Amino acid sequence: MTEPTPTVDMEKLVSLCQRRGFIFQSSDIYGGLNSCWDYGPLGVELKRNIKEAWWRMMVQGHDDVVGLDASILMHPHVWEASGHISSFSDPLVECKECHQRWRADQLEGDRCPSCSGELTEPRQFNMMFKTFMGPVEEDAAVVYLRPETAQGMFVNFQNVVNTTRKRLPFGIAQIGKAFRNEITTGNFIFRSREFEIMEIEFFVKPGTDKEWFDYWVGERFNWYVKLGIRRENLQLRPHEEDELAHYASKCSDIEYLFPMGWSELEGIAKRDDFDLRQHQEHSGKSLEYYDDDTKEHYLPYVVEPAAGVDRAVLAFLCDAYTEEPDKDEVRVLLRFHPDLAPIKVAVLPLSRKENLTVFAKDVYADLRPQWAVSYDDTQSIGRRYRRQDEVGTPYCVTVDFDSLEDKRVTIRERDTMNQIRVPVAELKNTLQTKLNGEDLFVLPPGGEVWKVERE
Amino acid sequence: MTEPTPTVDMEKLVSLCQRRGFIFQSSDIYGGLNSCWDYGPLGVELKRNIKEAWWRMMVQGHDDVVGLDASILMHPHVWEASGHISSFSDPLVECKECHQRWRADQLEGDRCPSCSGELTEPRQFNMMFKTFMGPVEEDAAVVYLRPETAQGMFVNFQNVVNTTRKRLPFGIAQIGKAFRNEITTGNFIFRSREFEIMEIEFFVKPGTDKEWFDYWVGERFNWYVKLGIRRENLQLRPHEEDELAHYASKCSDIEYLFPMGWSELEGIAKRDDFDLRQHQEHSGKSLEYYDDDTKEHYLPYVVEPAAGVDRAVLAFLCDAYTEEPDKDEVRVLLRFHPDLAPIKVAVLPLSRKENLTVFAKDVYADLRPQWAVSYDDTQSIGRRYRRQDEVGTPYCVTVDFDSLEDKRVTIRERDTMNQIRVPVAELKNTLQTKLNGEDLFVLPPGGEVWKVERE
Repeated sequence: MTEPTPTVDMEKLVSLCQRRGFIFQSSDIYGGLNSCWDYGPLGVELKRNIKEAWWRMMVQGHDDVVGLDASILMHPHVWEASGHISSFSDPLVECKECHQRWRADQLEGDRCPSCSGELTEPRQFNMMFKTFMGPVEEDAAVVYLRPETAQGMFVNFQNVVNTTRKRLPFGIAQIGKAFRNEITTGNFIFRSREFEIMEIEFFVKPGTDKEWFDYWVGERFNWYVKLGIRRENLQLRPHEEDELAHYASKCSDIEYLFPMGWSELEGIAKRDDFDLRQHQEHSGKSLEYYDDDTKEHYLPYVVEPAAGVDRAVLAFLCDAYTEEPDKDEVRVLLRFHPDLAPIKVAVLPLSRKENLTVFAKDVYADLRPQWAVSYDDTQSIGRRYRRQDEVGTPYCVTVDFDSLEDKRVTIRERDTMNQIRVPVAELKNTLQTKLNGEDLFVLPPGGEVWKVERE
Repeated sequence: MTEPTPTVDMEKLVSLCQRRGFIFQSSDIYGGLNSCWDYGPLGVELKRNIKEAWWRMMVQGHDDVVGLDASILMHPHVWEASGHISSFSDPLVECKECHQRWRADQLEGDRCPSCSGELTEPRQFNMMFKTFMGPVEEDAAVVYLRPETAQGMFVNFQNVVNTTRKRLPFGIAQIGKAFRNEITTGNFIFRSREFEIMEIEFFVKPGTDKEWFDYWVGERFNWYVKLGIRRENLQLRPHEEDELAHYASKCSDIEYLFPMGWSELEGIAKRDDFDLRQHQEHSGKSLEYYDDDTKEHYLPYVVEPAAGVDRAVLAFLCDAYTEEPDKDEVRVLLRFHPDLAPIKVAVLPLSRKENLTVFAKDVYADLRPQWAVSYDDTQSIGRRYRRQDEVGTPYCVTVDFDSLEDKRVTIRERDTMNQIRVPVAELKNTLQTKLNGEDLFVLPPGGEVWKVERE
């Protein structure tokens, strides 16, 4: 068996992202803010589409999952209960010569990797960003930016049970920002200090947690495959006993073959009753669930599939990136699944002659209420096709001089470059079939890798 | 003319929101975190629908507007240039007796409103939350949580021009979180320390800014009307000269008649070239635009429609809230526009008899891929209708014993309580027509209040 190689190198991808308006460095006119990123006009649509596909398939597509949107600032007791104040830290060392800082657990030798200077003794550095609520900067006013979204769902467990009358098993889903004051960041949007998480806390009856763990591993793995990530670029890596987080009894990472190698895209963790028990103790409020069937009170167990939104963006970009020889040049295209493509259709009049642009703008106006559509009439048609390929637009619609006579337009497909000619009256239906042709609730052929049946 | 009265009092609305899972206080098992709020299962869907309607109509619906998603943490120089470090403050006084804190500009007398104690001299209190990036809490490491989303769009102005090749006039749109360390908060989600903004920075040629200001006032006012807010509960209030923010040359608020009276829902401000000029000076980077038509370089002027997402949620909730006499009781319903309703359709079998629930679950499974659909088979049908009315579900589909014979189901409408019976084979199409019947690009009759044509 040969090991697959990454689809694209990082430098090339970063360059494309900046050049075409997917992702910019934050505050870059001021020299940039290290490890924070802004999503540009195309990037924001790609990220929105990924989050929408997650919400549609994980919340709307599961009748036992409901949504939540908790605030980023939470009561400081939440982080005492969760263990973040005592345990969410990395060992930090500083070079006594050049004053660069390093994570002690990531160093191979005992001298500075930059200047070989002597290092300080490691000290534990808490990675939560802290700030002060109210006008006085005193200990009593400290609040933290959440370092994860999970706790917002645990502290609302009883609220959700009471207001939705959901019975076990059921899940609470959330998408939102989290912040970690990482000592070392890097690999573009892979590890940054501000990032977005999409995750589910799925509450189950103790004893059924192993099956549900397997179910969610399969469900999440398949989600990436359904949205077009190639099977060979994904792998499942169960955690070793000694790398488990303090709250987890079991964990598997879904890894993607990023440009820097296999790295975590999503983690599915078995948190059992760790969090509910901690919050019950610290808050003094019962978080027990009453089981109507068995007439018992107990703390549910939890299975948590937690994905990084920015990592998903990066993986979908990498996996879509393709270079193809095209005559004497190289054609660069992003083979996005139609649901993820920032622009679904581009309307291109062959030239800027007025009668052509009037016709083309009518076509454009007709399609716009339905999809994200772009109109472009600058430069040669060949260059415009290339531009659309490079941002992953699945279909171009070209209006030429024959169109004025026969009322037909050309649809050109991104991946195959095949062209078909259709009556303009049938354009919308044809595009509808093409764009919505893939049922996201069904795995593509050959994509079936997990088959755990729900109880 | 009689002054209209608010639709609902705040206490009633807060109670409904907590009881039915729209909005909870943040961290409430720990006694709550003052002025931060969590959106529950129904609230998150309402808020998502509002943001989606904004994005669809303001970004997808305007071919001269593109999206952006900038980070919350930005380079501290951004806030020097924007004037927030020097000017974004409120005068704070403290009672020398009871130590409560007040905004000096909101007090009527010169003694504490709570205990009549003596107050300290006012001091300027900056409302930006600050934190430290990196492991050392030193001045050089200070970063701020953004107090507004606008600056992310200004510092990316050249990035957007370069990557999208947009020509003036064009806009950049963004939805995102912002944070203000307010001295006084309150009125539920109206004024909180963590909130969400949806806004556009619309860049125009100087001299055309007045017309574009009028255009955006109309466009934004009409957006609320199209989504169902009653015209008489909205008013436009131009700012007086002396209440303009430091960056604005003109501003109009769209006010809604909230339970506490007329208050700002959205502000449309003319910021002219204040921000681009400041960032050009502070960054040393040219932010001028080259006008192909006139062959000039200049700084564009800016018109900014900025809406609070949470205030929009509150306004849509208030305006939808209705109490009607119904026999000896009171029927409470939320008359949401179908696009905003958290649940679009509820499927209700008349009883839990197995053959009914099998039929009803088939109907439910058939509708779910398309809409947010709920299934409920508990308690009497009357109580279930009430429950759906109270959360604003536009249509209930009831499966009864006749359905098993004639393959027809009953559709019951929320507002009129009218019922029609349709063949189950036609159910999806019928609901489609009803739910998508209102074209959001067209104003409802009588709703036309602003008619400024674009150039």
